[in-house]
Amino acid sequence: MSQDQTYKNAGFGGQVPRGPNPALIVIDFSYGFTDLSYPTASDADAQIAVTNTLIAAARKKSVPVIFTVISFNERELDTLAWLKKAAGMKALVDGSRHVEIDDRLDRQPGDVVIVKKGASGFFGTNLAAHLVGAGVDTIVLTGATTSGCIRASAVDGVQSGFNVLVASDACADRAQPPHDAALYDIQQKYGDVVTSSEILTYLESI
Amino acid sequence: MSQDQTYKNAGFGGQVPRGPNPALIVIDFSYGFTDLSYPTASDADAQIAVTNTLIAAARKKSVPVIFTVISFNERELDTLAWLKKAAGMKALVDGSRHVEIDDRLDRQPGDVVIVKKGASGFFGTNLAAHLVGAGVDTIVLTGATTSGCIRASAVDGVQSGFNVLVASDACADRAQPPHDAALYDIQQKYGDVVTSSEILTYLESI
Amino acid sequence: MSQDQTYKNAGFGGQVPRGPNPALIVIDFSYGFTDLSYPTASDADAQIAVTNTLIAAARKKSVPVIFTVISFNERELDTLAWLKKAAGMKALVDGSRHVEIDDRLDRQPGDVVIVKKGASGFFGTNLAAHLVGAGVDTIVLTGATTSGCIRASAVDGVQSGFNVLVASDACADRAQPPHDAALYDIQQKYGDVVTSSEILTYLESI
Amino acid sequence: MSQDQTYKNAGFGGQVPRGPNPALIVIDFSYGFTDLSYPTASDADAQIAVTNTLIAAARKKSVPVIFTVISFNERELDTLAWLKKAAGMKALVDGSRHVEIDDRLDRQPGDVVIVKKGASGFFGTNLAAHLVGAGVDTIVLTGATTSGCIRASAVDGVQSGFNVLVASDACADRAQPPHDAALYDIQQKYGDVVTSSEILTYLESI
Repeated sequence: MSQDQTYKNAGFGGQVPRGPNPALIVIDFSYGFTDLSYPTASDADAQIAVTNTLIAAARKKSVPVIFTVISFNERELDTLAWLKKAAGMKALVDGSRHVEIDDRLDRQPGDVVIVKKGASGFFGTNLAAHLVGAGVDTIVLTGATTSGCIRASAVDGVQSGFNVLVASDACADRAQPPHDAALYDIQQKYGDVVTSSEILTYLESI
Repeated sequence: MSQDQTYKNAGFGGQVPRGPNPALIVIDFSYGFTDLSYPTASDADAQIAVTNTLIAAARKKSVPVIFTVISFNERELDTLAWLKKAAGMKALVDGSRHVEIDDRLDRQPGDVVIVKKGASGFFGTNLAAHLVGAGVDTIVLTGATTSGCIRASAVDGVQSGFNVLVASDACADRAQPPHDAALYDIQQKYGDVVTSSEILTYLESI
Repeated sequence: MSQDQTYKNAGFGGQVPRGPNPALIVIDFSYGFTDLSYPTASDADAQIAVTNTLIAAARKKSVPVIFTVISFNERELDTLAWLKKAAGMKALVDGSRHVEIDDRLDRQPGDVVIVKKGASGFFGTNLAAHLVGAGVDTIVLTGATTSGCIRASAVDGVQSGFNVLVASDACADRAQPPHDAALYDIQQKYGDVVTSSEILTYLESI
Repeated sequence: MSQDQTYKNAGFGGQVPRGPNPALIVIDFSYGFTDLSYPTASDADAQIAVTNTLIAAARKKSVPVIFTVISFNERELDTLAWLKKAAGMKALVDGSRHVEIDDRLDRQPGDVVIVKKGASGFFGTNLAAHLVGAGVDTIVLTGATTSGCIRASAVDGVQSGFNVLVASDACADRAQPPHDAALYDIQQKYGDVVTSSEILTYLESI
């Protein structure tokens, strides 16, 4: 049996509702992930441009735009379990350029920036509580990297009770196979993987 | 540049410490995931046998053995966001055979069974608190499915502060490519992916 | 300055919005907390009767009714940190009468029962995710004990993003001073403490 | 029956183990809570002095010292549920003097500062994960306010699996009755309430 048929039989790949109260969450587009002079980065130029079109559409409809960044205190570099496995992430130190959101992103003063210490935008943060307080029912994810923080945030988003949409052309990764594998898994099990153009249509309909 | 080289440059793939206080966590080996007469299942015969050798080694050293299962209340079938995307999981209803742990597993009365409502063994459960109370520093994961609940539990395990080891030959999945992609990502970013024989050596050294 | 004036100056005691999508959460009305033959119990006869009037009003409007219970696996009795301080809670063992919801409560098959391992209904459970999936914006709390699990659930409820209402005459405790002190703190800082009659008016307005 | 007898019969008030790996957590000693020119503050002069003796003892034994502060983004002022009830907390805005840790505290560069959005130091933060990664088994709490953030952190600390000690003479509150009631409840149910002198003896024994 083909993999697609196996997943279909298992009851995966359903369509996620698009609720009336979305939020756009831009994951980890800080220089550590977008500036190729750093070894932790991906080529994200096109994905940042696409994310900006989504941000513009969101602002037009007063849809919340939330950014996440990974940033570590120096003491955490020795204690956090993740940094033993992914030691390259130690470059993401408080105050460094690595943890600044890429200036090409269309930010506004007052935008919420969630500081996180792991892959998921929800883990160890008040992102879920913030979304609940704001009455959000659906999250749209863009950012980097697809197989890391986007995927972990998609899993936690749906576990937290939100409808999850991922804009495939607004997600960057370091290599194509993990990007593709992550989008496949997300589309089958956690959220709808769609193009930014479909997200734009949705946001305009709000 | 090769993908492996890209990841190496990014500082991934480090070795995880093996602490003195491990726990063995057997993820979702209930009939819904192990009995091929159900469309949600994987072929897990070999992986269950391997898991039993790990359980035996753990018991010999008084290492805690913890099982997880997914099980839903009927009311949850209509409310949980995950079940809109992964509707096949609705078969995992409280009291059904799908949510019984496969009888081939070597369970003992008093073993902790964590009931969960999503992919991760940590999300919406007291697993982390239980491990902290028990003084655990390192978790060994086996079960099903590799690309779903094992992977999500590995990500949450390291985010929660634990060293994560995954026994590759004790993890089952519905298809080979997602299994392989998940193990690749885990080994690079979240935990050490090793054979059960390496886990046995570790457990015997406790 | 009087305590009330100090709190008013500090900006506490605001009124909580009553949203269009409430849920009624009945905290720990299991026999271990309601049957005075057990030393862990409170006299909760009147509070159970009042809770039943709220349940009836909720059902009329299809407002979700959710129950919580504390229940421990035998292995947890030795590991959970809480049970070193509050050893009396060890009586709440899986399968014992202590953990059965008091039969006087007006339950229906299919009502969600959240099993928890600590004071808060939210900690280590999927209660928040369940409420988000169900679109709930406001929670109404009743149960036992006021100074323990009600209070902890009120704090976590508002931290999780929900409007919190506590029905004062539907909350039982072992002694009056902690009951009063808890309601004072909740009313000042976490949720509106109101009578069941005000809750009934609210539920009828849905 | 006296309240103390009722609690004793219920099995509360046990003694909490003092583990070999403590951490000192200083809760919310920012100017918003310590400078009486702000209406949200308490008189905390003596408690800050006592906390400094604990910090000194901790540093001598390389015991981690962690600070928490509440600090809100402007956008959060409109969305967080807590700020509807406790509107006075809106003064705690990012970048304001209210959210700076009181300069009298003996801080060192590199000390971890946990930014939180509610009462508990654990809720919506990576405090638990940080403690697990650092191998901590026991937490010592000081700070402000006793009936608010200290109490909520004590409840979450023990729920998270840690032994909880509260230094009674290092905790400040706005009024005496809520301070006393909180310490009573904590001592009965969540952690040992002891003097700083007992904490010093413990830290010196590490």
